[in-house]
Amino acid sequence: MPPIPADRDALGMQRAFEEAEDGAKEGGIPIGSALVLHDDNGDRILASGRNMRIQKSSATLHGEICCLETAGRLKAGVYRKCTIYTTLSPCIMCTGAILLYRIPRVVIGENTNYVGGEELLKQNGVEVIVRNDSQCKELMAKFIKERPEDWNEDVGDE
Amino acid sequence: MPPIPADRDALGMQRAFEEAEDGAKEGGIPIGSALVLHDDNGDRILASGRNMRIQKSSATLHGEICCLETAGRLKAGVYRKCTIYTTLSPCIMCTGAILLYRIPRVVIGENTNYVGGEELLKQNGVEVIVRNDSQCKELMAKFIKERPEDWNEDVGDE
Ligand SMILES: [Ca+2]
Ligand SMILES: [Ca+2]
Ligand SMILES: [Zn+2]
Ligand SMILES: [Zn+2]
Repeated sequence: MPPIPADRDALGMQRAFEEAEDGAKEGGIPIGSALVLHDDNGDRILASGRNMRIQKSSATLHGEICCLETAGRLKAGVYRKCTIYTTLSPCIMCTGAILLYRIPRVVIGENTNYVGGEELLKQNGVEVIVRNDSQCKELMAKFIKERPEDWNEDVGDE
Repeated sequence: MPPIPADRDALGMQRAFEEAEDGAKEGGIPIGSALVLHDDNGDRILASGRNMRIQKSSATLHGEICCLETAGRLKAGVYRKCTIYTTLSPCIMCTGAILLYRIPRVVIGENTNYVGGEELLKQNGVEVIVRNDSQCKELMAKFIKERPEDWNEDVGDE
């Protein structure tokens, strides 16, 4: 995949944040994700998703997993031309999903509220970009403050 | 969690293998999983699941993810008293899910046909037991031989 300049990340990051906002409106954990294909025709959103722990009583539909699930079955070569966007640093499960499909580039809204598997991604050659986005930070900080038990459950903490 | 002797693994391993067989009958990728709680009342299967790539056009419902999803929302402390069983060595996504929830013990039917994130599990203190089960090996080898494209897609290979 050729280098992707940061100004092309607005499309995916915006969609990921909209997903997080939709999650908040539903009473869910406000984390969103989007998968964007970069090819000769430009950039195209293949899928997006949001954390569904509360909405679907789900233990595995984190934002990124929901996004990849919504994208459906893709050939290996498609993932290799994608960036995955997520409003929050990906946990180790979502990190593993990114590594399984060898998605070469991960753009993270913020890692102030949580740090997931960023080092493991980098060790495996994945490009990791943290945007330090204040909207993402505020939305997540508010949720963690108001509903610490739901948040702890989502990341496997007591 | 106290040490679990290997003779107590028949319950979970048997269920995981039945899931894999059910997957094969459905035309799916024959990998199954089960989550077993060990507590003062003995051993209890909390959930089981199987790979759903073919059946549900799913990119994320590997056997272990399907099993954890079926188990639903659990408090962190429950996972800490569980063994997860899987007929095949867990890929890096499923490895990440096991690490997220800090499941302390993983029993693997076989790792001849595929080796996933076993080393990362061990590095993080997870007990990993490989049974080298001939039934698991034969079922998976037959699938890989007959349908290499579906298998490659499931593990992100070209
Ligand atoms: Ca929306
Ligand atoms: Ca059955
Ligand atoms: Zn996650
Ligand atoms: Zn897997």
